[in-house]
Amino acid sequence: MTRIGIGIVGGGYMGKAHAVAMSAVGAVFDTALRPTLEVICTTTAEGAAQKGRQFGFARSTADWRVLVDDPAVEAVVIASPQETHRDIALAALARGKHVFCEKPLGMGLGESREMVAAAAKSGCVNMTGFNYIRTPASQLAREIVAAGELGDITYFRGEHTEDFLADPELPASWRTEGRANGNMGDLSPHIINATLALLGPVKSLIADIETVHSTRSSPQGPVAVTNDDQAQIMCRFANGAMGSLFISRVATGRKMGYIYEIFGTRGALRFDQEDQNALWLYKGDAKPDRQGFTKILTGPLHPDYQPFCLGPGHGTGYQDQIIIEAKDFLQAIATGKPAWPTFEDGMLVNQIIEAAWKSHEERRWIDVASV
Amino acid sequence: MTRIGIGIVGGGYMGKAHAVAMSAVGAVFDTALRPTLEVICTTTAEGAAQKGRQFGFARSTADWRVLVDDPAVEAVVIASPQETHRDIALAALARGKHVFCEKPLGMGLGESREMVAAAAKSGCVNMTGFNYIRTPASQLAREIVAAGELGDITYFRGEHTEDFLADPELPASWRTEGRANGNMGDLSPHIINATLALLGPVKSLIADIETVHSTRSSPQGPVAVTNDDQAQIMCRFANGAMGSLFISRVATGRKMGYIYEIFGTRGALRFDQEDQNALWLYKGDAKPDRQGFTKILTGPLHPDYQPFCLGPGHGTGYQDQIIIEAKDFLQAIATGKPAWPTFEDGMLVNQIIEAAWKSHEERRWIDVASV
Amino acid sequence: MTRIGIGIVGGGYMGKAHAVAMSAVGAVFDTALRPTLEVICTTTAEGAAQKGRQFGFARSTADWRVLVDDPAVEAVVIASPQETHRDIALAALARGKHVFCEKPLGMGLGESREMVAAAAKSGCVNMTGFNYIRTPASQLAREIVAAGELGDITYFRGEHTEDFLADPELPASWRTEGRANGNMGDLSPHIINATLALLGPVKSLIADIETVHSTRSSPQGPVAVTNDDQAQIMCRFANGAMGSLFISRVATGRKMGYIYEIFGTRGALRFDQEDQNALWLYKGDAKPDRQGFTKILTGPLHPDYQPFCLGPGHGTGYQDQIIIEAKDFLQAIATGKPAWPTFEDGMLVNQIIEAAWKSHEERRWIDVASV
Amino acid sequence: MTRIGIGIVGGGYMGKAHAVAMSAVGAVFDTALRPTLEVICTTTAEGAAQKGRQFGFARSTADWRVLVDDPAVEAVVIASPQETHRDIALAALARGKHVFCEKPLGMGLGESREMVAAAAKSGCVNMTGFNYIRTPASQLAREIVAAGELGDITYFRGEHTEDFLADPELPASWRTEGRANGNMGDLSPHIINATLALLGPVKSLIADIETVHSTRSSPQGPVAVTNDDQAQIMCRFANGAMGSLFISRVATGRKMGYIYEIFGTRGALRFDQEDQNALWLYKGDAKPDRQGFTKILTGPLHPDYQPFCLGPGHGTGYQDQIIIEAKDFLQAIATGKPAWPTFEDGMLVNQIIEAAWKSHEERRWIDVASV
Repeated sequence: MTRIGIGIVGGGYMGKAHAVAMSAVGAVFDTALRPTLEVICTTTAEGAAQKGRQFGFARSTADWRVLVDDPAVEAVVIASPQETHRDIALAALARGKHVFCEKPLGMGLGESREMVAAAAKSGCVNMTGFNYIRTPASQLAREIVAAGELGDITYFRGEHTEDFLADPELPASWRTEGRANGNMGDLSPHIINATLALLGPVKSLIADIETVHSTRSSPQGPVAVTNDDQAQIMCRFANGAMGSLFISRVATGRKMGYIYEIFGTRGALRFDQEDQNALWLYKGDAKPDRQGFTKILTGPLHPDYQPFCLGPGHGTGYQDQIIIEAKDFLQAIATGKPAWPTFEDGMLVNQIIEAAWKSHEERRWIDVASV
Repeated sequence: MTRIGIGIVGGGYMGKAHAVAMSAVGAVFDTALRPTLEVICTTTAEGAAQKGRQFGFARSTADWRVLVDDPAVEAVVIASPQETHRDIALAALARGKHVFCEKPLGMGLGESREMVAAAAKSGCVNMTGFNYIRTPASQLAREIVAAGELGDITYFRGEHTEDFLADPELPASWRTEGRANGNMGDLSPHIINATLALLGPVKSLIADIETVHSTRSSPQGPVAVTNDDQAQIMCRFANGAMGSLFISRVATGRKMGYIYEIFGTRGALRFDQEDQNALWLYKGDAKPDRQGFTKILTGPLHPDYQPFCLGPGHGTGYQDQIIIEAKDFLQAIATGKPAWPTFEDGMLVNQIIEAAWKSHEERRWIDVASV
Repeated sequence: MTRIGIGIVGGGYMGKAHAVAMSAVGAVFDTALRPTLEVICTTTAEGAAQKGRQFGFARSTADWRVLVDDPAVEAVVIASPQETHRDIALAALARGKHVFCEKPLGMGLGESREMVAAAAKSGCVNMTGFNYIRTPASQLAREIVAAGELGDITYFRGEHTEDFLADPELPASWRTEGRANGNMGDLSPHIINATLALLGPVKSLIADIETVHSTRSSPQGPVAVTNDDQAQIMCRFANGAMGSLFISRVATGRKMGYIYEIFGTRGALRFDQEDQNALWLYKGDAKPDRQGFTKILTGPLHPDYQPFCLGPGHGTGYQDQIIIEAKDFLQAIATGKPAWPTFEDGMLVNQIIEAAWKSHEERRWIDVASV
Repeated sequence: MTRIGIGIVGGGYMGKAHAVAMSAVGAVFDTALRPTLEVICTTTAEGAAQKGRQFGFARSTADWRVLVDDPAVEAVVIASPQETHRDIALAALARGKHVFCEKPLGMGLGESREMVAAAAKSGCVNMTGFNYIRTPASQLAREIVAAGELGDITYFRGEHTEDFLADPELPASWRTEGRANGNMGDLSPHIINATLALLGPVKSLIADIETVHSTRSSPQGPVAVTNDDQAQIMCRFANGAMGSLFISRVATGRKMGYIYEIFGTRGALRFDQEDQNALWLYKGDAKPDRQGFTKILTGPLHPDYQPFCLGPGHGTGYQDQIIIEAKDFLQAIATGKPAWPTFEDGMLVNQIIEAAWKSHEERRWIDVASV
């Protein structure tokens, strides 16, 4: 068993999730490489110290450069705001350190491309954090599609819908400022990643993007919301299939609406993250009077489930997705084989977002490759 | 109790449904006007005689003009192929007879406009057959939206998906020939009607329409399919809401996917015709830790349910939708008040279809009013 | 096409349902025998006349003897209160008239046995009305079990739960008086019939029966409730399987909880009348990592569905169950073959109820055959 | 932050789950006490060493006495076979060490009572492991019932159903030998605990217990199965409510059927562990035409959810339940306040099991307090 020193940038929601994952992943997956929590970095020294104690890090800092420079830190997890991703990643890669970077990869396509280039040059493991696609159910969905069980895919529908800004009375905040923090910038990457993971490249698309609540209250009175609340996209995939995406942070009633439905010539499937331990599968070759959607409960026969539990239907949760990511990151470092999704995969998501904005602004179909 | 003589054109699926409805509606709803089944018309004299016996008509014919001219026929139900709708309707209206015409109203927008004009001129009751919107659940949905229970509507998603042509091995047939018999021509009207009924007018749209299986087998070898298999539409409504439609006859696994979801600032609802006796409602003002979608089972407190059954959750079915239509048609005749949906409502559906084709062909957003 | 004269006793909920069914059944099923609505009987002459007009009967009466004696009445549908069932049935059978009698057959086992004997002696068609078991889904369930698709049955759970008396503030009424109108007397027969239809005879049982709300308000002040609100039963079937039943009229939230689940060595199924167009089937021999319950939507391939609708998933409802019963009743008369469920089947339900009461009173297991 | 030395007896499924939980709990819940993994004990020295490495323990042993005697071990988690529970617990308590013992507490009621007495005498923290009741959803259910939101409870239905021995072809194993390893001994404790936690004490019960597959294959030919496969119980609670339990390891199709439904005079709820992040609640005081079961997705407003995730509907899983248990165990040690469920709670489950066997054998109602 070999140890590997971990540094985590970010002590919020995602920083914590990765810290917990790094604490648990060894026992869960019996990984060859075992993480040692070396340095955590958050915005203030006091905060970093507090988080360091809570999560069990050896050292803490308010300066990510210190973390990146720390010789004991061999791999860096970037879970800080997206405007910091590029600089941290480039610095870490330049020092030969493996990097796991939360979605979205960079602030826009340009930054993401820089990061991909830097990763390629470094030879280090690089991975983008799209945790929802790591559930056993979504991994199974990918297997089913890839194996051709559904035949040729004819239609894909995806959505990422939540309602945390549905109430018009909610005040302005960092979430309502700046395109990167908007619905397309912050919420869409997960389901776009799922779309690409399940169906392959998008050839062309047309998007409609909207700020539903254009002003929000603030202590200084009403202020303008400077990013989008919801968006929809129609597309065609390289494989010819038709597709549709809907992303919203104002979808009243939806809590974790990471949903996809896939129709093929021989079958169909659907998934809803709000019931993440089930996958619904329809097989066209079933006996005609016994056909229907089958609710498959994930279990030890499905990807990455058994290490969490020997019984089917016992269920994995949000935190387990992050543990699976940690396992793959460590495994990639140990074996030298790339970990999916790479920075490249992260960059492709930015490309779709950029194409969507362009389409929205020009009110026309856009060839994704042209962006 | 007054009798009214009914003639039905069409002895197939829909003709039968209307014949059964006319037999049952009086007892179910205690209507003021009671239908007498006078004449049925189907394509052959023998067939018409057989259907006449089965359904209990006094006379039968293979010529719809005979039916329309029959002095005992006071109201005509048109359930024949759509290419016949206009001529029959115009003839009947010209003779002062009330007309119920199955969807889609005419072959294209032009015909439908003619029919609307003829109806207006005649002063007769005119009604278009969109049965799915008549379930107690969908009537309740309309009430909820109209009463503002969801607040301002922000997003609508509708689909009409079935899979009767999903199998690429199915041979060519009348269904695969001619735009009117295609997915947009034949399947889309129901959900477009629902869309308009629930959200009001569509301002602009962009569509993508596809023939998924472009050839089908026939006794003479492979033949080209000359209409579409699936289509998707993005739109903006006059009230500002964003919307999305998907219509498919190749959606493997879907049997009666007449589905809609509506998000508003204060609530949300969803409906799936495959479970037609339930409506799912989310109220944003519920206690925060008790919020969720509520599965409302239709019952006597909801529109047009009680005449079928005194107990909630006992359920109505497909045939009952047609009986509700028959009730409203008879009531309109009896009271002289228009019956929803009128020919005008049917025509507005054709307008959306026409706009969708235009948008598809020109690959751009189309203002619906311009069509 | 031959006509048959029908008399219906009862103008309430069930009388209406049968009147509608007799109006529609010919067109729906193209029956050989076509009903003519001759006489309706309700409690008052005025009421009978009104219902006769509404439902389309030729004559009406407040005296069921007049109906039974009417020479044009060839078949009698008994939809009046249960205390009247025996006398009407015996009189009708004595006059050589076919009898359809609503559940429960007689007031207790003794009356039901008299009715079975009278029916046997008469040679007339005799049928008991258990409509819920006539849905296409429940007919399919019976086929699946009978064909051995589930292997040997190991466990059965059934319930009939509604909540129409759940509110303790509801006043006393005829429903809260007399054992026959109680939960076991009035509500249990449907699910007991389903239990027998699906699993075969019950060998032994133990029951616990309870009056949850023992007093109810009345204009004269609080009065005692003299029948039961809920009951549960454990049993063993003749085939060795274990079983459980729960019947309640105070099951808050349940509207039409006619639910059963069946486990066998090779499969399982479950059904809930609140979603009556679906049957959930689990096949143990499915591929291990693709196993799960399949939601089968009923369609034209399933029993008695196609005459209502050519499309799967379009759905049948409560009224359609009564039409299916009418079809089988007419067919039995036309062919001379018994119609399931016969009076014998109705009597077997009474036997279970009687055994349950005995078990409850003696607080012990009871051999059903001993009752 | 204070450290506490942990010893875990058992390196299988549950031992691993507790080891992972002890690794993660500090970071997740920011506990005052932080576990140090001191000693693990499994059946062989090699196995223990391997598990020790995998889970991160400082030392390992094949002798639980060594673990219990280890001065660095301050708290012991017992996750070994149930026949070892008593001896380990008694030894640990005698040495003043806190004990968390997996369900079922002891081998039968007698052992459990010994353990309760020993715990009381020791003054140490004692806790029984019933993880399923620790989901946010089930904790919420307990709150709802306790707060009287459902009014007076009238009926409870619980089941614990799985299908791991449904296939009659599965060979004999330790699972099919000995009452303690049977369905009642091994599977029933979780749902019995839930029953008591939700409804309070059971006053009387009657049970039927069955070995469905009485022989199983073995290398030596067919051998007798010496424990039960399924059981059902009817009961009355001390609060007067009626109840029903079904426990089965041969319930084909059920993977994690830990299900309960509760009816009260003012509401109802239901829960199914196969969708553990949802609780269905019906409120009788909702507007009559908007009533129905509401699917509440657990989120940060519900018990023990927020430390895992800030977003509602993101979901917790099986492993998280164990982390919640670890948190409560550590907190009880830190604060000196008892941790629910105590050994006493574990013992009460054994009492129900013993009463059920007695009832089954004597075929009669049993007063639970008499056992």
